[in-house]
Amino acid sequence: MRILVINGPNLNLLGRRQPEVYGTTTLAQIEERLAQRARELDVEVACFQTNHEGEMVDLIQREGERAQGIIINPGAFTHYSYAVRDALESVGRPVVEVHLSNIHAREGFRRRSVVAPIALGQVSGLGWRGYLVALEALVGILREEGA
Amino acid sequence: MRILVINGPNLNLLGRRQPEVYGTTTLAQIEERLAQRARELDVEVACFQTNHEGEMVDLIQREGERAQGIIINPGAFTHYSYAVRDALESVGRPVVEVHLSNIHAREGFRRRSVVAPIALGQVSGLGWRGYLVALEALVGILREEGA
Amino acid sequence: MRILVINGPNLNLLGRRQPEVYGTTTLAQIEERLAQRARELDVEVACFQTNHEGEMVDLIQREGERAQGIIINPGAFTHYSYAVRDALESVGRPVVEVHLSNIHAREGFRRRSVVAPIALGQVSGLGWRGYLVALEALVGILREEGA
Amino acid sequence: MRILVINGPNLNLLGRRQPEVYGTTTLAQIEERLAQRARELDVEVACFQTNHEGEMVDLIQREGERAQGIIINPGAFTHYSYAVRDALESVGRPVVEVHLSNIHAREGFRRRSVVAPIALGQVSGLGWRGYLVALEALVGILREEGA
Amino acid sequence: MRILVINGPNLNLLGRRQPEVYGTTTLAQIEERLAQRARELDVEVACFQTNHEGEMVDLIQREGERAQGIIINPGAFTHYSYAVRDALESVGRPVVEVHLSNIHAREGFRRRSVVAPIALGQVSGLGWRGYLVALEALVGILREEGA
Amino acid sequence: MRILVINGPNLNLLGRRQPEVYGTTTLAQIEERLAQRARELDVEVACFQTNHEGEMVDLIQREGERAQGIIINPGAFTHYSYAVRDALESVGRPVVEVHLSNIHAREGFRRRSVVAPIALGQVSGLGWRGYLVALEALVGILREEGA
Amino acid sequence: MRILVINGPNLNLLGRRQPEVYGTTTLAQIEERLAQRARELDVEVACFQTNHEGEMVDLIQREGERAQGIIINPGAFTHYSYAVRDALESVGRPVVEVHLSNIHAREGFRRRSVVAPIALGQVSGLGWRGYLVALEALVGILREEGA
Amino acid sequence: MRILVINGPNLNLLGRRQPEVYGTTTLAQIEERLAQRARELDVEVACFQTNHEGEMVDLIQREGERAQGIIINPGAFTHYSYAVRDALESVGRPVVEVHLSNIHAREGFRRRSVVAPIALGQVSGLGWRGYLVALEALVGILREEGA
Amino acid sequence: MRILVINGPNLNLLGRRQPEVYGTTTLAQIEERLAQRARELDVEVACFQTNHEGEMVDLIQREGERAQGIIINPGAFTHYSYAVRDALESVGRPVVEVHLSNIHAREGFRRRSVVAPIALGQVSGLGWRGYLVALEALVGILREEGA
Amino acid sequence: MRILVINGPNLNLLGRRQPEVYGTTTLAQIEERLAQRARELDVEVACFQTNHEGEMVDLIQREGERAQGIIINPGAFTHYSYAVRDALESVGRPVVEVHLSNIHAREGFRRRSVVAPIALGQVSGLGWRGYLVALEALVGILREEGA
Amino acid sequence: MRILVINGPNLNLLGRRQPEVYGTTTLAQIEERLAQRARELDVEVACFQTNHEGEMVDLIQREGERAQGIIINPGAFTHYSYAVRDALESVGRPVVEVHLSNIHAREGFRRRSVVAPIALGQVSGLGWRGYLVALEALVGILREEGA
Amino acid sequence: MRILVINGPNLNLLGRRQPEVYGTTTLAQIEERLAQRARELDVEVACFQTNHEGEMVDLIQREGERAQGIIINPGAFTHYSYAVRDALESVGRPVVEVHLSNIHAREGFRRRSVVAPIALGQVSGLGWRGYLVALEALVGILREEGA
Repeated sequence: MRILVINGPNLNLLGRRQPEVYGTTTLAQIEERLAQRARELDVEVACFQTNHEGEMVDLIQREGERAQGIIINPGAFTHYSYAVRDALESVGRPVVEVHLSNIHAREGFRRRSVVAPIALGQVSGLGWRGYLVALEALVGILREEGA
Repeated sequence: MRILVINGPNLNLLGRRQPEVYGTTTLAQIEERLAQRARELDVEVACFQTNHEGEMVDLIQREGERAQGIIINPGAFTHYSYAVRDALESVGRPVVEVHLSNIHAREGFRRRSVVAPIALGQVSGLGWRGYLVALEALVGILREEGA
Repeated sequence: MRILVINGPNLNLLGRRQPEVYGTTTLAQIEERLAQRARELDVEVACFQTNHEGEMVDLIQREGERAQGIIINPGAFTHYSYAVRDALESVGRPVVEVHLSNIHAREGFRRRSVVAPIALGQVSGLGWRGYLVALEALVGILREEGA
Repeated sequence: MRILVINGPNLNLLGRRQPEVYGTTTLAQIEERLAQRARELDVEVACFQTNHEGEMVDLIQREGERAQGIIINPGAFTHYSYAVRDALESVGRPVVEVHLSNIHAREGFRRRSVVAPIALGQVSGLGWRGYLVALEALVGILREEGA
Repeated sequence: MRILVINGPNLNLLGRRQPEVYGTTTLAQIEERLAQRARELDVEVACFQTNHEGEMVDLIQREGERAQGIIINPGAFTHYSYAVRDALESVGRPVVEVHLSNIHAREGFRRRSVVAPIALGQVSGLGWRGYLVALEALVGILREEGA
Repeated sequence: MRILVINGPNLNLLGRRQPEVYGTTTLAQIEERLAQRARELDVEVACFQTNHEGEMVDLIQREGERAQGIIINPGAFTHYSYAVRDALESVGRPVVEVHLSNIHAREGFRRRSVVAPIALGQVSGLGWRGYLVALEALVGILREEGA
Repeated sequence: MRILVINGPNLNLLGRRQPEVYGTTTLAQIEERLAQRARELDVEVACFQTNHEGEMVDLIQREGERAQGIIINPGAFTHYSYAVRDALESVGRPVVEVHLSNIHAREGFRRRSVVAPIALGQVSGLGWRGYLVALEALVGILREEGA
Repeated sequence: MRILVINGPNLNLLGRRQPEVYGTTTLAQIEERLAQRARELDVEVACFQTNHEGEMVDLIQREGERAQGIIINPGAFTHYSYAVRDALESVGRPVVEVHLSNIHAREGFRRRSVVAPIALGQVSGLGWRGYLVALEALVGILREEGA
Repeated sequence: MRILVINGPNLNLLGRRQPEVYGTTTLAQIEERLAQRARELDVEVACFQTNHEGEMVDLIQREGERAQGIIINPGAFTHYSYAVRDALESVGRPVVEVHLSNIHAREGFRRRSVVAPIALGQVSGLGWRGYLVALEALVGILREEGA
Repeated sequence: MRILVINGPNLNLLGRRQPEVYGTTTLAQIEERLAQRARELDVEVACFQTNHEGEMVDLIQREGERAQGIIINPGAFTHYSYAVRDALESVGRPVVEVHLSNIHAREGFRRRSVVAPIALGQVSGLGWRGYLVALEALVGILREEGA
Repeated sequence: MRILVINGPNLNLLGRRQPEVYGTTTLAQIEERLAQRARELDVEVACFQTNHEGEMVDLIQREGERAQGIIINPGAFTHYSYAVRDALESVGRPVVEVHLSNIHAREGFRRRSVVAPIALGQVSGLGWRGYLVALEALVGILREEGA
Repeated sequence: MRILVINGPNLNLLGRRQPEVYGTTTLAQIEERLAQRARELDVEVACFQTNHEGEMVDLIQREGERAQGIIINPGAFTHYSYAVRDALESVGRPVVEVHLSNIHAREGFRRRSVVAPIALGQVSGLGWRGYLVALEALVGILREEGA
C-alpha cells in the first residue's frame, strides 16, 4: 500500500519561521517520522512539497493514480484552490486533509476549506503528530475497506 | 495521566441508527477500544455520555479538573452550545474535538463549530479511529509539554 | 397504532400566559382533545411535556421507538436545538411539527425551524386545532403506507 | 358558510407529473374530496386553479368577497408574488396556506413564503390531506369566532 | 402632450380597502382629479389599471409609444417585476414612479423598487396628491426639455 | 401656516458644481421660487442651509417648533445622520424629504435614507421642482388635517 | 423531431429598441433563421413569444408535451419566475436557456437565473446566433440520446 | 418586595477561573453583597444558579411568579436560549439582564443577546457592582410604578 | 475625583418630547440628581450637553483630561460616530455608556453601538436611574483601582 | 483567422474521470472535432491545455496577440483567477467562455465566474458540442465585425 | 501651485496619545515637514485641522477652490462622512487620502473608506512620511497634467 | 540596504495595454526610475516580475531573505492569493503594497486585498510614482528603525 503525502506553499519553511504558530519541527523531520511510522504500518509513503498550484495539480494526477490514499496539507491553497479540489476529486482516492495549526481558531478566512467537502476527513491543530495519526487512520480505513 | 472523554447527545445510539452516516460500531465498543489504547499508552481514560447540555457542563467542570486533557464529541451541541464552550474554556485543559463523520462535508450548519475556536485541535471524518488517534496525539502533546 | 405527542418548553403555561398569542386553552385540555380524537381514530396517543432539552432527546429516543409517528411542538427549541433534530432523525419515525401561532408571521428568529427539514410536514397558526388535524393526517398517512 | 379554494401555477398537472414529489392524486380528486368533506361539515367550497398571477388576484378580489375564508396553495407564486399577498390582505378574510410537499425541506427558495406573514396559518408536507385538514380547522375557527 | 398613467395590482380596490394605509379616495376619483389637473396644464392623460403583469407590459409597449411621459404606480410589481422595468426602459419615455404610502417606512420588501433605477424620479407617501404633483413636475420637465 | 425648509451639506454649491447631476439652478433661485409658490398658496416658508449636522439639529429643534411642517433635503446626512432623524422625530411635525437627483438610481449608499422611515413622504429625482411639489402637497395635507 | 422555442417579455421589441444592448435583428428574423436552420437539421421548430407569465406557463405545459426539447429566452422572467421554472421542470424536456446579451456582465440581478438550475445548459452573449447554436447542440444531444 | 436573582452556566466558577475576564469575586460573595444591599433597600432577594437550561426555565416559571422583578445573568444562554427568553416573557415580570464583562467588547457572538429585546434594561461590564446597581434601579422603578 | 458627564444630540429635549420612550424627567433634573448623588459619594460631576459631534469631540479631549472617568450618553452618535469613539479612546479614561431606553429592544440600527467596544461598560433601559447607578459603579471601580 | 482555444486544470483528464459529470469524450477528441469544424469554417484553431495558472496567463498574452478570438474553458480557475481575467482583458480579444457541465446547476461556488464579466458570452452545459458552437458563433461574430 | 492639507478629528492629539498606533510625531511637526518639503518642491501648502465635520466641509469648499490639489486625512470621518466625500467631489480637485496607520490591517470598520472611491489615490501605514510622499506624488501628477 | 521589488501577473504588459487605466509608462521604465531613486537614496533595488503565483512565493522566500524590505504589486493575486500573503508573513520583512490605479475606486473585488492586513502600508492610485514614494518611505522607516 502506497500513501501520497503532499505539502503546499510555504510549508518548506516549517520549523524555521513563525514557530509560535507552526512549531519547531522541520518538514524533513516530519517526512522522516512519517516514513518510520509507515514502515511500522508496513506501507510506503511518497512525500512531496510545492509552492506551485499547478505542480500540486500535476502531482495529484500523476502520483495519486499510483497511491491508495492521499494525505494533504494544501497550505494556503486550502482556502481558494478549486483546481486542487477538482484534481483530488478526479483522482478518486480517499483524502485526509491535515493542518498543523487549528485553522478553526485563526483568522476568518482560514476557517473555510474548499478541499474539505470532498475529503474523507480532516485533522487540524495537532502539530506534526497530525500527519502521523492521519496516516494511521487512513491505513486502517483502507485495510478495512480492502478486507 | 487521566484523559476525560465526553460524548454528547444521540451518540448513545451509535451503531444502531443511521449506520450509513455514523458506522456500525457502538459507543461501548469505542470506549472499550479507547480503554485498551489508553492501557498501551499507560494512561487512564474516563468516558461519559449525556444527552443533557447541563450535565455536560457539570461533567466538564467536575471531571475536567481531575483530568490532564479532554477529548470531546459534543454531537449537536457542537453547533450552538456556548455553555459547553465556556465550560471547556473555564476548566483550562487542552481539548481535542472529535467528529465521526466529516462535518465539513455535510449540511451547512454542521460545518460551524462553536467549540473549535477554544480547542487545541479537531479530528473529523475518521470514524471511531478518530477517538484513538485523538488520544494518541493528545497524550503525546501533554507528555512533551510536561517534559 | 401509537402516536407520541411531545410539547416543549413553556408550553406547560398554555392558557394561563399570553393568551393573545397562544389562546386560552390549557395543555391539559389539548391533550384531552387529542385523546378523544385518538379514540375516534382508533389509535393511542402518549403525551409528554418538558422544559428540558435533554429530557426531550431522551423521550424521543425511548418513546419514539415504541410509537409509529411523532407529533411535536418543540417550542423555543424549534429554532436552535440540533440535538432534538438529530434525535428525531435517528429514531426514524414520521414527524409532524405543530405550532399554535403562525411562526411565519412573528419575529424573524421564529420563522426558522431547524427541525422542519427532517419532518414530514408542519402545521402552524391553527391553534389547538393544529394538533388534532396533525393527528388526523399523520394517522391517515401511516395507514396508507401500512396498507 | 363558503370557503374559497385556490390552486396556483402547475397544480393542474398534479398526479401526472413528478409523483415522487407531489403524489399521484389529481387536482380533480382533491377538489372532490374537499367537496365531500365540505358537505360533512355543512359548508360550501368553491375551487379554482390558475397559472396566471393576474387571474389569481382577480379571483381573490371577486370570489374572496363572497367567501368567509380562503384556502390557498399559491404554488410557485408563494415565493415572490407580493401582488397575491396584497390581494389576500386587501380582501381581509382568514387565509390558510397549503403546500403538498414540505417546503421547509426543499430548495432554499421554497422555504420562504411571502404570503405566510399575512396568513392565519400554514399546512405543509401533508399531501392532499393538507387541504382537508386546513378546511376542517378553518371552519372550526370561523364558527368559533362567529359564535 | 399626452401622459400615460398606469396603476398596478389591487389599486382598483383603492378607497374601499385598508383606508388606514391607502386613504379613502377611490381610483376613479384620483383619475378624475388627474384629468382636471391635466386640463389646467393643457395636457392629456390616459389612465389604465390592471392586476396582470403581462397586460401592464403590453400597455407600456402600446400606450407608452403614444405618450411623452409615464406616471406609474406598479403596486406590488414594484418589488419584483423586472418585466415591467424592462418594458419601461425599452419604451424610452421619462417615468415618474408614484406610491400612495411611504414605502420607505413599511415592511422591508416594500423599500426596494426594481423600477426606480430606470425612473426619472419617485414620489411616495403623499397620498392621492402624489399623482397630481408627479404630473405637474413631469409636464414641467418635458416642456423644459422640449423648449 | 409656516413651513420650514432645510437644505443640508454642499447644497450651497447648487448650480455651480456638477450640473450634470444636480442641474444649473442655484439654491437662491430655488428658495425664491419656493417663496413665490408659498405666496400663491398663502403660506410662509422659512429657508435655511447648513453644512453642519449639529446646526441642522439645532435648526430643526428651534425652527421646527414654530412651523407646521418641514421640507428637508438632508444632503449626504440622509444616509447616516440618526441625529437628524431623531431631531425630526422629536419635533413631531410632518416631514417631506426631497432629493434633487433620483437617489434610487445612484451609488448603493445613496439608496438608503435613514430619515425616510420617520418621514411622511419622499420626493426624489424631480430637480428643483421637487421642492415646489413637496410644498404644494404638504400644505394640502396640513390643511386637510386641520379642516 | 420538434423543438419548442419560447421568447419572453419585451422580446417582441427586438431590433427596434435598445439596439446597443440587444442588436438590430428582429424577433421575426431570428425565428426565420431558426426555421431555416431547423430545415437543414431536418427538425421542426415551433416559435412563440409572450409578455405574460401565465401564458408562458400554459405554453410550456401544452406545447412542451408535443416537443422533444425546449429553447427558451425567458427575458426578465429569468430572474424571478419560479412558475416558469416549475413548468419547465414538470414537462420534463431538456431545456437550453438563451440570452442575447451576456447576462453575467450586466446588472447584478441579471446574473442570477432561477431557470438555469433545471436547464440542460445556457448560452448567453452570442446575440441571435445563440439561438441557432442552441438549436444545433440540442438536436445533437437529443439524437445521441435517442440513438 | 421580592427580587429573583438567577445566574446561568459556569457562573458557579466565578472568582476561581479566568479572573482576568470575570474578576476575583466569587458568586457567593456577590450573593452576600446583594443580600446586604437588599436589606438596605428593605427588599428580599432570592438567588439561584444553574448550569441547566431546563432548570433555568423551571426556576423562572416557579420563582418568577413569587417575585416582583428579576435580575438575570443568563451566561452563555444569553446568546441562544429562546427557551429562557420565552420563560421570562411568559412570567411577565420586569427583567434586568446583567453581565460581568462588557459583552459588547468581546467575541462577535457575545454581542448579541436573545434575551435583551424582552428585558427592561441591561447592565454590562461593571463587574459584581453590576448586580448591585441593577437591584437598586429595579427596586426604584418597581416602587415608582407601584406608587 | 471628577467625573465628566456628556449627553448628546436631542437629549436637551428630554422630558418634553416622546415621554413614552424617554420618560418625563428633564435633563436639568437628571443633572441635578447626579450632582446630589456625587456629593453623597464625595466626588464632583461636570455635565455637558451638545447637539454637535465636533463639540463632543472637543469636550472629550478638553474635559476628559481633567476628569478621572466619563459617563456618556452619545444619543444618536452612538450608532455611527467613530470620531466620538476615537476621542474617548484617545483620552484613555474609563467610560460608562448610558442609554435611557433599552436600545437592544428598539429599531435594528439602535442595537449597534460603535462606542461600546472601547467602553468599560454599558447601562441601558433604566431611565434616569441609569446615570446614577453608572456614577456609583464608576466611582467604586475607580476607587478600587486607585486603592 | 486564428482562434485560440485554452483548456484549464484537470481538463486533461477528460473522458477518463467522472464521466457522469463531464462525459466520455477525451480532450484530444474535442480538439480534433474543433480542428475539423475550423476547416469547414475556413479558420485555424490553436489548442492548449494547462494545469498552471501562470502558464495560462503566459499563453493568453503570447498566443492571444496572434489570434482574433479566444475560446476558453478555465476549469476551476473560472471561480477565482482574477489573473486569468486580467490577462484576457489586457489582450483585448473577444472571449467565449465554455463549460462542459451546466455550472449554474452545480455547487454554489461553480455558479460564479470571475471571467464572465469581461467575456463576450458564455456557453455551459452543452458538453463537447459547447466548444463547436462557441467556435461557430465566434467566427460568425468576428466576420460580421470585420465586414 | 497651492496644495490644501486637511486633518480630521483627534489628529490634533497626534504624538501625545496612543503612540503605539500613531507614532510620536506631533501634527505641528508633520505640518512643518510638509512646509519644508513644499519649499523644496517650490509649492505652497495650506494646513488645517478640525474635529468638526461641518467645518471640514466648509474648508474643502472655501480652501479647495483656491488650491490645485488636496491631501486629506479625514480621521474617523473616513468611514462614514458622505458629506466630506460630496464636498471633495464637488470641488473637483485631485485628492490624495492619507492615513498614518495601515487602515487595512485594523478593525473591520476602518478598512472601509467612503472617501476613497472619489480620490485619486490613497497612502496608508507609512506614518508621517505618508504625507510627504503624498505631496511629492501629487505635485508630480499635477505638473505632468499641467505640462 | 537592499529592497526587493516584485510585480505580479500582467504587469509585464504595462504601458502597452489599457493605458487609460494603467498609464503609458512601461515596467522597464518604472524599474529604471526605481534604480535611479535607489542610487539617490544610496540603497540597492532588486526587481522581478512574474505571472506565476508559485514563482512569486519562491521569489519572496529566496530574495526576501536577502533584502531588508519588500515593495510588491501583486497584481490580481492581491485579491485571493493567501499563498503570497503567507510567504510575505513568513519572511518577516516590512512590506509596502503598491497599486498603480486606485483599487478602492474600481470593481468591488479589487477593493479587497488579502495582502494588506500583513503589510506595513499601502500606496494606490499614484501611478508609477507610487513605487518611488513607497521606496522613499520604506527606506526612511528602515533607517529610523535601524538607528
